[in-house]
Amino acid sequence: MTEDHAPLIATPYLLFLGDAPDQLAAKVAQGICDWRPEYAIGQLRLPDCQADLGRPEMTLAEARAAGARTLVIGVANRGGVIAPAWKKVLVTALEEGFDLASGLHNLLRDEPDLAAVARATGRALHDVRVPEVKYPIADGRRRPGKRCLAVGTDCSVGKMYTAIAMDAEMRRRGLSATFRATGQTGILITGDGVPLDAVIADFMAGAVEWLTPDNDADHWDLIEGQGSLFHPSYSGVTLALIHGGQPDALILSHEPTRRHMRGLPHYPLPSLEALRDQALALARIVNPDVQVVGVSLNTQHLGEDEAMAEIAATEARMGLPTVDPFRQGAGRLVDALGAL
Amino acid sequence: MTEDHAPLIATPYLLFLGDAPDQLAAKVAQGICDWRPEYAIGQLRLPDCQADLGRPEMTLAEARAAGARTLVIGVANRGGVIAPAWKKVLVTALEEGFDLASGLHNLLRDEPDLAAVARATGRALHDVRVPEVKYPIADGRRRPGKRCLAVGTDCSVGKMYTAIAMDAEMRRRGLSATFRATGQTGILITGDGVPLDAVIADFMAGAVEWLTPDNDADHWDLIEGQGSLFHPSYSGVTLALIHGGQPDALILSHEPTRRHMRGLPHYPLPSLEALRDQALALARIVNPDVQVVGVSLNTQHLGEDEAMAEIAATEARMGLPTVDPFRQGAGRLVDALGAL
Repeated sequence: MTEDHAPLIATPYLLFLGDAPDQLAAKVAQGICDWRPEYAIGQLRLPDCQADLGRPEMTLAEARAAGARTLVIGVANRGGVIAPAWKKVLVTALEEGFDLASGLHNLLRDEPDLAAVARATGRALHDVRVPEVKYPIADGRRRPGKRCLAVGTDCSVGKMYTAIAMDAEMRRRGLSATFRATGQTGILITGDGVPLDAVIADFMAGAVEWLTPDNDADHWDLIEGQGSLFHPSYSGVTLALIHGGQPDALILSHEPTRRHMRGLPHYPLPSLEALRDQALALARIVNPDVQVVGVSLNTQHLGEDEAMAEIAATEARMGLPTVDPFRQGAGRLVDALGAL
Repeated sequence: MTEDHAPLIATPYLLFLGDAPDQLAAKVAQGICDWRPEYAIGQLRLPDCQADLGRPEMTLAEARAAGARTLVIGVANRGGVIAPAWKKVLVTALEEGFDLASGLHNLLRDEPDLAAVARATGRALHDVRVPEVKYPIADGRRRPGKRCLAVGTDCSVGKMYTAIAMDAEMRRRGLSATFRATGQTGILITGDGVPLDAVIADFMAGAVEWLTPDNDADHWDLIEGQGSLFHPSYSGVTLALIHGGQPDALILSHEPTRRHMRGLPHYPLPSLEALRDQALALARIVNPDVQVVGVSLNTQHLGEDEAMAEIAATEARMGLPTVDPFRQGAGRLVDALGAL
């Protein structure tokens, strides 16, 4: 019954770490190893690379022989540019039959040498910040299958982590689930998705409908959230996700030490109660049966005792299963979906 | 104190009606004549044109001599294409020093001959469906000056008409006001604005902030609304307008005979009460003092008696000044702004 489109990026990957100055610079590649280890056939590092993912070191030729189809730039350097030192590897990769994929601001397609070689060799350059699909306008039709969306009190509070951790837990349990990426990191990790913040306004909700099509009645899409209904810079994107995704289940995401909205010192964070009420009211427009099923707290800035106390207090206050999926796993959130 | 940017389109205009098959096909040109008659120096019609705006008939040369700076394609034909029969006029206009402006789907810039002549003559091609500005990301900062936004129970219920009629009434009274266009018709009428439905998602709210900048304390921006919070295809655009526009005053717009959301037979219209509550809750995030000041009904599908009864009943029910600005003028809505 699923009507999924063909994935955007061919898997598996060879992960290019370049001359990463430290492990953090290889965050995207780390995400792939954490969440889709089966896609990470090997790693390719330049001589002064300071990051190591512990994957087999491979040349381009070795990785091709092992089945790798795309060289993913899994490293971000300052300014998000394509470093001259990387060029020889990237050009050779195209010549040896790899597609290239990147989430850098500096687009692959804007590099004349890469564009020319890709054209000559017939290989694809995937700039995952840029939509590659002509999305439809949303029609609001109720679609079979179930969908879960994390909505946040703010941007960058752990919505992607929550969705991808739930997806992993559901697969572990043998349940039918798909993580649906709506941002560049998620797209590179899974090889597919919609770069929602780069979509034209009129097509945002339609892009989310396209991303989460008709599916089996017991299948769950775990949709990556974006922005916040309470963040004036990005709230429109969030509402398009809610109305395009027509979620059956909402997870409330929050970072309890955040003192103001990200980048906006004059905007306080809303309460979890305000987020619950606002998100439910808007989601009911497209799905009257939608429920808030749990709370996901990002407690990375709290010590273990503080974190557990905050989680327990939130659970008592909200009357909803509450976890930090990084500390505790997403099992209780998945349990909550099972009750729907 | 106002920080307005330079207008997008040079005024005044010569209105090109082409071979319009009827008066309705010249709707955009009619809007210019209705709302900015001072921009409409004259009209230029092809031999079999069935529309007539009653403006002076002018050749290109006569209009240039009279000061016209832009030839506006004020006609839509089936499919929104640039007809071969128009080409000679358009090319000659560029050669004689006119810019061209169009809201057609078929972009001026995509016509090789027009693009080449515009380049050679240094004239501008304004496709008002396409943003010409690199908009910022919204920062949510409170801006001096006052702003009014019409929000609708649905798309196409009279939000633009309401805002532009209020603007006209305020100017008539000598008040300080600016209509801020967010769609192609409004942009062609006023020569300026943001084609919001064509803006990249991340920049929607920032585009609205850019459109409605710092202004004098007693100045009102009348912002053209788009979509509806309750229309799943476009609700994200509407929320970006609310959060970017940070309105002081909201007008509720409604078409009382509409049976379902435009294009979505399975979605009923919300009540005016539901619209009021939802729009207020979201607008308060950026402006805690926002108020709903009135209701604008589009009663074009009702007879006079029915219409007046509907207006009176709505006013009694909502406890808000209620008018059909087309039948009654926007005076009472402007009065309501004066009370803020």
